Amino acid sequence: MKEQIQSADGKLGILLPGLGAVATTFIAGVAAVNKGLAQPIGALTQMGNIRLGKRTENRYPLIKDFVPLANLQDVVFGGWDVYDDNVYEAAMKAKVLEPALLQAIKPELEVIVPMKAVFDKSYVKNLDGHNIKEAPTKYDLAKAVAADIEQFSKTNGCNRVALVWCGSTEKYIEQSAVHESIEAFEAGLKNNDPAISPSMIYAYAAIRMGIPFANGAPNLTCDIPALIQLAKETDTPIGGKDFKTGQTLMKTILAPGLHARALGVRGWFSTNILGNRDGLVLDDPDNFKTKEVSKLSVLEDILQPEINPGLYGELYHKVRINYYPPHGDNKESWDNIDIFGWLGYGMQIKINFLCRDSILAAPIVLDLALFMDLAKRAGMTGIQEWLSFYFKSPQTAPGLRPEHDIFKQLIKLQNTLRHLMGEDLITHLGLDYYQDLVEAL
Amino acid sequence: MKEQIQSADGKLGILLPGLGAVATTFIAGVAAVNKGLAQPIGALTQMGNIRLGKRTENRYPLIKDFVPLANLQDVVFGGWDVYDDNVYEAAMKAKVLEPALLQAIKPELEVIVPMKAVFDKSYVKNLDGHNIKEAPTKYDLAKAVAADIEQFSKTNGCNRVALVWCGSTEKYIEQSAVHESIEAFEAGLKNNDPAISPSMIYAYAAIRMGIPFANGAPNLTCDIPALIQLAKETDTPIGGKDFKTGQTLMKTILAPGLHARALGVRGWFSTNILGNRDGLVLDDPDNFKTKEVSKLSVLEDILQPEINPGLYGELYHKVRINYYPPHGDNKESWDNIDIFGWLGYGMQIKINFLCRDSILAAPIVLDLALFMDLAKRAGMTGIQEWLSFYFKSPQTAPGLRPEHDIFKQLIKLQNTLRHLMGEDLITHLGLDYYQDLVEAL
Amino acid sequence: MKEQIQSADGKLGILLPGLGAVATTFIAGVAAVNKGLAQPIGALTQMGNIRLGKRTENRYPLIKDFVPLANLQDVVFGGWDVYDDNVYEAAMKAKVLEPALLQAIKPELEVIVPMKAVFDKSYVKNLDGHNIKEAPTKYDLAKAVAADIEQFSKTNGCNRVALVWCGSTEKYIEQSAVHESIEAFEAGLKNNDPAISPSMIYAYAAIRMGIPFANGAPNLTCDIPALIQLAKETDTPIGGKDFKTGQTLMKTILAPGLHARALGVRGWFSTNILGNRDGLVLDDPDNFKTKEVSKLSVLEDILQPEINPGLYGELYHKVRINYYPPHGDNKESWDNIDIFGWLGYGMQIKINFLCRDSILAAPIVLDLALFMDLAKRAGMTGIQEWLSFYFKSPQTAPGLRPEHDIFKQLIKLQNTLRHLMGEDLITHLGLDYYQDLVEAL
Amino acid sequence: MKEQIQSADGKLGILLPGLGAVATTFIAGVAAVNKGLAQPIGALTQMGNIRLGKRTENRYPLIKDFVPLANLQDVVFGGWDVYDDNVYEAAMKAKVLEPALLQAIKPELEVIVPMKAVFDKSYVKNLDGHNIKEAPTKYDLAKAVAADIEQFSKTNGCNRVALVWCGSTEKYIEQSAVHESIEAFEAGLKNNDPAISPSMIYAYAAIRMGIPFANGAPNLTCDIPALIQLAKETDTPIGGKDFKTGQTLMKTILAPGLHARALGVRGWFSTNILGNRDGLVLDDPDNFKTKEVSKLSVLEDILQPEINPGLYGELYHKVRINYYPPHGDNKESWDNIDIFGWLGYGMQIKINFLCRDSILAAPIVLDLALFMDLAKRAGMTGIQEWLSFYFKSPQTAPGLRPEHDIFKQLIKLQNTLRHLMGEDLITHLGLDYYQDLVEAL
Repeated sequence: MKEQIQSADGKLGILLPGLGAVATTFIAGVAAVNKGLAQPIGALTQMGNIRLGKRTENRYPLIKDFVPLANLQDVVFGGWDVYDDNVYEAAMKAKVLEPALLQAIKPELEVIVPMKAVFDKSYVKNLDGHNIKEAPTKYDLAKAVAADIEQFSKTNGCNRVALVWCGSTEKYIEQSAVHESIEAFEAGLKNNDPAISPSMIYAYAAIRMGIPFANGAPNLTCDIPALIQLAKETDTPIGGKDFKTGQTLMKTILAPGLHARALGVRGWFSTNILGNRDGLVLDDPDNFKTKEVSKLSVLEDILQPEINPGLYGELYHKVRINYYPPHGDNKESWDNIDIFGWLGYGMQIKINFLCRDSILAAPIVLDLALFMDLAKRAGMTGIQEWLSFYFKSPQTAPGLRPEHDIFKQLIKLQNTLRHLMGEDLITHLGLDYYQDLVEAL
Repeated sequence: MKEQIQSADGKLGILLPGLGAVATTFIAGVAAVNKGLAQPIGALTQMGNIRLGKRTENRYPLIKDFVPLANLQDVVFGGWDVYDDNVYEAAMKAKVLEPALLQAIKPELEVIVPMKAVFDKSYVKNLDGHNIKEAPTKYDLAKAVAADIEQFSKTNGCNRVALVWCGSTEKYIEQSAVHESIEAFEAGLKNNDPAISPSMIYAYAAIRMGIPFANGAPNLTCDIPALIQLAKETDTPIGGKDFKTGQTLMKTILAPGLHARALGVRGWFSTNILGNRDGLVLDDPDNFKTKEVSKLSVLEDILQPEINPGLYGELYHKVRINYYPPHGDNKESWDNIDIFGWLGYGMQIKINFLCRDSILAAPIVLDLALFMDLAKRAGMTGIQEWLSFYFKSPQTAPGLRPEHDIFKQLIKLQNTLRHLMGEDLITHLGLDYYQDLVEAL
Repeated sequence: MKEQIQSADGKLGILLPGLGAVATTFIAGVAAVNKGLAQPIGALTQMGNIRLGKRTENRYPLIKDFVPLANLQDVVFGGWDVYDDNVYEAAMKAKVLEPALLQAIKPELEVIVPMKAVFDKSYVKNLDGHNIKEAPTKYDLAKAVAADIEQFSKTNGCNRVALVWCGSTEKYIEQSAVHESIEAFEAGLKNNDPAISPSMIYAYAAIRMGIPFANGAPNLTCDIPALIQLAKETDTPIGGKDFKTGQTLMKTILAPGLHARALGVRGWFSTNILGNRDGLVLDDPDNFKTKEVSKLSVLEDILQPEINPGLYGELYHKVRINYYPPHGDNKESWDNIDIFGWLGYGMQIKINFLCRDSILAAPIVLDLALFMDLAKRAGMTGIQEWLSFYFKSPQTAPGLRPEHDIFKQLIKLQNTLRHLMGEDLITHLGLDYYQDLVEAL
Repeated sequence: MKEQIQSADGKLGILLPGLGAVATTFIAGVAAVNKGLAQPIGALTQMGNIRLGKRTENRYPLIKDFVPLANLQDVVFGGWDVYDDNVYEAAMKAKVLEPALLQAIKPELEVIVPMKAVFDKSYVKNLDGHNIKEAPTKYDLAKAVAADIEQFSKTNGCNRVALVWCGSTEKYIEQSAVHESIEAFEAGLKNNDPAISPSMIYAYAAIRMGIPFANGAPNLTCDIPALIQLAKETDTPIGGKDFKTGQTLMKTILAPGLHARALGVRGWFSTNILGNRDGLVLDDPDNFKTKEVSKLSVLEDILQPEINPGLYGELYHKVRINYYPPHGDNKESWDNIDIFGWLGYGMQIKINFLCRDSILAAPIVLDLALFMDLAKRAGMTGIQEWLSFYFKSPQTAPGLRPEHDIFKQLIKLQNTLRHLMGEDLITHLGLDYYQDLVEAL
């Protein structure tokens, strides 16, 4: 295994459809880290350790010292956006990072200018940009994206590329005939089928080229049979959907805890206030619907009411997102959770998370790009379920229930890395620490 | 393995030193469940499922259908207390359960009258009771406890017994010479060594008889070399310390989540308000110290600042408990957590847990009694680390760092049960769901 | 003045359109108080004191000992509802009060059976009842209501009656031609003008008879020129709109405090979760609109952005109500308030109010009925602005800005009572306590 | 009256014992305002309006346009501190204001160098500074302070001076014989009586010179008969104690609201976390005692349990302050309030105030200095109860209960200003807006 992984040497291009708050925070952050101005907190690939062997061995290497990942110094950035601000300008407008920090890395940022975007206003009503590709068919748009990637790669001397969708949430659509097979999909591209969204066009272009693609929004994008099939044919790792940040992150931490203790949940009310472009887009009910579906599925899959009807059968779950300009990117969530314990007695948990949307999302972009690149080099193709850890609504093999419990997701990720590198999987059994117990058994 | 576990048939006596709010809520609850009046929510042994085999097999039996546990109908209760109220009276005074419910099970509760307690006011200044054993030495007190157990067992026709400490938190003491060996300890019992606390006397009596003992308070109790040694000699399962409820439960759920995502933690302020007898006892600084040590250790062990100094090296952790009579048993906690993410940007989490102390603790008493009894029948002796899941400050083999992460504790518990019953351990690797991926590997 | 107030002797009938959670909690409460089972907490008329004279005089009589109010023992109850449950049944379904308490006053409650209601589904889509008056015109409906009142009065030997609207919030409508004069209004009644809502029909019937009418919902109801004019002609006290409870109560307490200190407010986000019939009705956007308008006006009027543009000119105010069944009548609100102080530095206030909707509203019904009856006996007619204290959206003389600051409202109420009874008004100047200071001045 | 107020022309020196976070934030703020860089938010004297006449007159002038106050451009600053950092350095260390802002006013700040302080470590154990006056007796220290004031005044060309104590909270002491008369006090100064604290020495020096003195900490300071007597003799306005900021501000806003509505209060738990020098000083129990007494009195005086025993007779009130370095000056409070309404049903309010201590205190320093100076010029001497609005524990005439309700305090302040300027006092009666009503009366 370990020996078959290709080297991470050479330049890795990370290309981002959507150069808004998340993407610019990510790019600026890596630039700042490379200049020694800050730490890449929140990125497992940079700051995380992994336990190897028995507890008593005390082996906790950094993940980046354990598996062969691209070095941050070897990464170059590019992307597309409907606005033509360069990354410095866009980052200033996003108001996530301190102006003083952005000033210090201005030269690195202002050279990154967005390529013209694939855009379809019917998918994102509340946005309005003019840096947009024009072409007769969606197929031509896909070809244009492919050309962009090739051009970027050549210009920057990349020997590998990865795409991570950082664009807005598209309106809600369900899977239909055009998504069923690659043949139908390519026909749809050519006759401008309205069920093919912009994010699908980027995904198609990348996967067709064998370039890893991860989807940070709740749109279907590459979670359709056509693109899953294509990914297999082109040996491409893919993954999605929807970066797991803020409230949902908290939910997939807390719900497994309540479930672990067999505590019942009667109701879970979640509200969010945020004032960035994401909030503006989600103020439209069609786009919110996409997000809502992604956010709602989480609890059901963790609590499994069908298996525990006495504990979770009556669960009432409601999620709200409110556009609230005074907070800007400082997304804030408030949850009220009605639980019940022994003999049905009720208790409540209130969680108020004063978070920063892009600060939580940026390291996920980094981890996904680096792990997707690793997967590609390790010959792992198709859906990367082991990266469920990063998604609100993880893409899985057809018929396989996604795992939302962040702790099971973490073990899956870590055991996958251990497996890749030929280390023992960890089960936490640990009976062997108790000699006599083992003998007794 | 599985075949060697002795049958759970016959009566199991559960004896509780301390018949206060927790113990009476536990006993009343089991009585109510047995009468079909309520459900034993929060008890894994009664309500919890366990996954077996692959995800696609859909095997999620109840734990009680998977491992051979004592049936609730076969359990009988007894205990000791410094007050002589019977369990019905004590439960009414505790004001945890509705009077109407207690009324419905009054006959079952009022026959349970506390035996005289071993008590030493120097260990619990704020309590004052008169149902107390008198004897010249601590050794005699231990013999009296043993006689109580035997008498109870005979009267009730038990063929097995388990003890769970539900008494108050004793004042803080550190391990000293008298605790180092069973010889020193027994000498200390005989010459009334002040470093031997009441809870140790109960533990000694039980372990000497080969009766499982679990410690629900943060006192040292059976976490001393003398009693660990004795437990091995008498083939007795033991475990502790301090039921994991409320704020600490929440902390061991949340901290692993933050750690999973490599988010930094700068400060964690925890305050509690409660107005029951536990709150009164902890209003004394000596007793609070014992609790504080138990509560503080949790974060350090989960976050491992020595391994992640950039994320947790500066963590400031403070825990406060306030006696606040208006809340009675409705313990409430408020936490402020200062975290930081990408590039060091700060965020905050506030958690307000409106909980009920005894409602959370009662099912733990049940699970511990039943699992301890299982361990005894399975020949598992000494410290039961696989039950760490239930403790704020888990007792482990000397030199072995305790595991506080509730999710690792859960996997340990579940994999121990799977191991006992000859099922495959679960690693969450799951690469085999992705045929082509496996081939690629 | 004082001498001209008519006596409060004899029976007072309190008639309530809408016998849901609020009305039944109110009626049951008075019954319980009259039986000595509970205290009328929250009712100024029963529990409130009023300071008279100088601080050093220490005169703080109960309000009910200071002004001549109807005695609780002299009150009889009746009402209308679209459901035909008697008050005992309706109170049980509302799940606000403990069954044991309702049981103790069952005889008093079950004799109160709702009269058939005036109902128009186009005004309240989410309700569906069958205890409804049928008549060819709205004018006939009004006559039927008047006949009900007279019948009730005779049957119960009342010498005075007051009406308080406790029905659901009607859909949003704006004032139109039919509301402009009593002539237009009566014509509208006769030709079934759709702009005349059920609550207006009740109000018309009462005011025409000279019976005081208070409006506890945000509907226009008696806040139209036609009914204001009629109230003057018939010497009837009227008032509204919308009982001030929960979140808005909190807002009119807190906002004056921030304003007092010249602290700026950048944003105020308010969300509510509730699961009673009120929540169900407000789940319909048309009905929510009525409520929203009532709730939003509050801040603007207290903070006066036009006078303080530097502090309140940019205020972003958002109010949300969410139907959340797990909470029943236990309405809960969460507010995030973004304020700024010295040099513009930002701060935040979060308020979580775990309230009970009907528990807060019931004493308001009582106070309004008793004070309206006092006004009638004192010859105070038309709009009773001094009762603004009880309303989210106080009705005032045309062209007069309503006062929302609860503390100014309270002084207005108290100084009105002092004025009525011939006591000095209080200005809190108090310079006379400082002899030398006064001389200096 | 109005005509007798002396002009505010010429320079006003504001001298501050204690140049820590509050004082430097205040000074820097005024400098920034004078340079047009920021607004003096939170200062009534600068941003506040006052209503004059009837509501319909729409007269709401700025307070500074209504009463003759010193102009900000005419103010000069000085002070004393145990550390010798100049105001720029001290402000940088306090970490309240952004470095960029401080940079812009560095020239104005760095010229302000603290004079040597009067310090007595027995009063503030947790501080340790070296910029300290040495003298044989406390009387000599007072003379040295007086000399400082005169020197400052001359150097800066001031024609008026005011002192505002911005130093740390001193340890708790009660009034004793040495405080009873000015004779005893001066004797005590001469024989170094330990019951005379540093803050009293500053107060004595100022009052002796006829210079207004306001006390921002909870120490007794000028709230002793000796200094009250002296203030009368020297025609000096004085006031205190303890700037009303943060949690107590919130409490005096909320408690009057609950009291207004006759809602009962069963318990009020208040906790604070802060990490500045104030937090460090209050970590010492002796100093916390002083603060605790100041903070606890508030509720009792607003709710008046002796007058409303059914509502407030059982109130349990607890206040905690926790030193928590991660928050620095960002003091945060959390309150849990247990209230009860109709029939005794319980409800809860939780308030989380993420405030900034010095940002809230700085404008109070400004207002107090300017209003004290106004009082002096208007001939108002002795205790200025009309400034209660700014204090946690307002100083009043002996035997007169302080008023804590912030709304009554505000009316007192506003009506005092109206009275001074010959405007009508406002009673909020407003019956005259209702013509017919007036006639009826």
